[in-house]
Amino acid sequence: MGQDLTVSVDAMGGDAGPGIVVAALARSAVRHPDVRFLLHGDEVQLKPLFARRAKLLNKVEIRHSPEQVRMDEKPSQVLRRGRNTSMWRAIEAVQARQAQVAVSAGNTGVLMAMAIFQLRTLDGINRPAIAALWPTRLGQSVVLDVGANIETDAQQLVDFAVMGETFARAILGLERPTIGLLNVGAEELKGHEAVRGAAQILRTVNLPIEFCGFVEGDDIAEGTVDVVVTDGFTGNVALKTAEGTAKLVVGFLRSSLRRSFLGRVGGLLASGALKALRRRLDPRASNGGIFLGLNGIVVKSHGGTDSMGFASALDMAIDMARADVIARIVADRAVLTRASNPPAAAAGTGAA
Amino acid sequence: MGQDLTVSVDAMGGDAGPGIVVAALARSAVRHPDVRFLLHGDEVQLKPLFARRAKLLNKVEIRHSPEQVRMDEKPSQVLRRGRNTSMWRAIEAVQARQAQVAVSAGNTGVLMAMAIFQLRTLDGINRPAIAALWPTRLGQSVVLDVGANIETDAQQLVDFAVMGETFARAILGLERPTIGLLNVGAEELKGHEAVRGAAQILRTVNLPIEFCGFVEGDDIAEGTVDVVVTDGFTGNVALKTAEGTAKLVVGFLRSSLRRSFLGRVGGLLASGALKALRRRLDPRASNGGIFLGLNGIVVKSHGGTDSMGFASALDMAIDMARADVIARIVADRAVLTRASNPPAAAAGTGAA
Repeated sequence: MGQDLTVSVDAMGGDAGPGIVVAALARSAVRHPDVRFLLHGDEVQLKPLFARRAKLLNKVEIRHSPEQVRMDEKPSQVLRRGRNTSMWRAIEAVQARQAQVAVSAGNTGVLMAMAIFQLRTLDGINRPAIAALWPTRLGQSVVLDVGANIETDAQQLVDFAVMGETFARAILGLERPTIGLLNVGAEELKGHEAVRGAAQILRTVNLPIEFCGFVEGDDIAEGTVDVVVTDGFTGNVALKTAEGTAKLVVGFLRSSLRRSFLGRVGGLLASGALKALRRRLDPRASNGGIFLGLNGIVVKSHGGTDSMGFASALDMAIDMARADVIARIVADRAVLTRASNPPAAAAGTGAA
Repeated sequence: MGQDLTVSVDAMGGDAGPGIVVAALARSAVRHPDVRFLLHGDEVQLKPLFARRAKLLNKVEIRHSPEQVRMDEKPSQVLRRGRNTSMWRAIEAVQARQAQVAVSAGNTGVLMAMAIFQLRTLDGINRPAIAALWPTRLGQSVVLDVGANIETDAQQLVDFAVMGETFARAILGLERPTIGLLNVGAEELKGHEAVRGAAQILRTVNLPIEFCGFVEGDDIAEGTVDVVVTDGFTGNVALKTAEGTAKLVVGFLRSSLRRSFLGRVGGLLASGALKALRRRLDPRASNGGIFLGLNGIVVKSHGGTDSMGFASALDMAIDMARADVIARIVADRAVLTRASNPPAAAAGTGAA
């Protein structure tokens, strides 16, 4: 409503091609009538997709880019030759303040490299984290990092905690989200140096966040805390393990029902309920990894998603831009730096 | 059958007390008529439990131990004063060759410390790993380490691969189990130094095992490989995340069914199928973490399990002892050491 929000979209990123991206824009334009879109990609492919969507073109500006990033390319290769790709251009529009947020379903590693290169990390942040929304017994939680940083030190985990907390306030609408560090046990002694060091900092520094100590893997689905902080290796394995387990259980359910006559009848009668279950577990509904810690917002959609999933990623991007997450993170980190007084860097060593 | 297999059992370990242990022995004695048990614990508590199980006493020798390990004790505290505990005595019987395997539902950290102290690790193994059986779409896989080693280097991961492979052959009856290293992506470049180094060793050394490269979190439930190798931090988080997710999905299913009349009727008709689902996901059925890498077998039962779960742990212990897993691991590692010729230790540095 006069907010003039613009989303920059990489049309060529997903496995399925630009068709699902344009269909997702159509969905999103209905939901968010005041949002505009910059659509980067091959105009020869894109234009025909609007043939029966003339009205949508009022809100979408197609920007031709002659090349695209392939799923199997390495970041180092593309950074050299990539400036004509739709992905580069999508981020560039955010960097040039023509859009508030960029969305792509392309190669994660390249997207991260291009985002860091163009947008730069926030002052004091070494590497961005990827945050994901995770369905829980109580609703949703934020888990980060789910894949950007294979190894992290204590100070980085503390940064993730601050960024995740801000994100949870902005996106989940929580006034005072609770934070937990993912570990193998609740006792003080357990875990490797980085998690113990981060816990030490989060406990001693007078931060305005609600740190609840260590949580374990089963606490994520339980919703024990609103923000689960971990390194990108553990977070990525946990996320994919959970996806695999949900799929396994639903598969077991299906084969159990199929095995007997009563099961089949019962399954038919309960088909509404089973559909509701599938909706609740639908990975498309919480599609989108958010790159946090940059001077700008980038949302990564799953490469294999459909238009519904890509529309979810657009929703998330729009929510993020509206909530002005970056400005909030900057403000929160300023508080953190003051609170952990003298120089914050000294706290990074952890201590036993 | 004249095999003279004896299982040494810590009666005092679980949260529920020795009652469930004795009930589990009764179950196990029916299943394994040729097995004998040494039962360590407080005889004042134990004897009455056999009042109506006189026949079982033919197979069970009660050995009084005056003390027990508490769940909140630290390994360092107990190692000093612990020699009169039921847990210590249970392991001691294996060390003294009076039993082939020990089972306890007690404190994991203390059990591991006592097992290492008394049984010692196998030649060339620094720390044992804890292996778990994991339900998959295709049956079961072995995942290790699920909690013993918070940080591991490349050579340790290779050791886990060898131990896990032997375990899968012995317990899952596979002739040539496939092995995967848990990582965040299938590409060569990804992952931290330890996993990349381990992959390098497993690829170059001419080992008689079927190494399939990297797998991701969702591959575990998919059953992509028979043995999933990872460090104890990641493995523990993955295991608990999977448990939490399975519980979440079943909870979602239950609440979906309850929400509508048809759902309730359908759920009733399909109750047999839903029970089958629950059985398939029942954590008690695959209860038991196996300590691999020691001169003797120790099985850790979940502390909160019931007699059915403890009986599963006894089953697993008996299978392990029958398969003579330790001797096989020793033989396999000898092959490894020869194969990775000149000194195996040199390979430990990994290389890019």
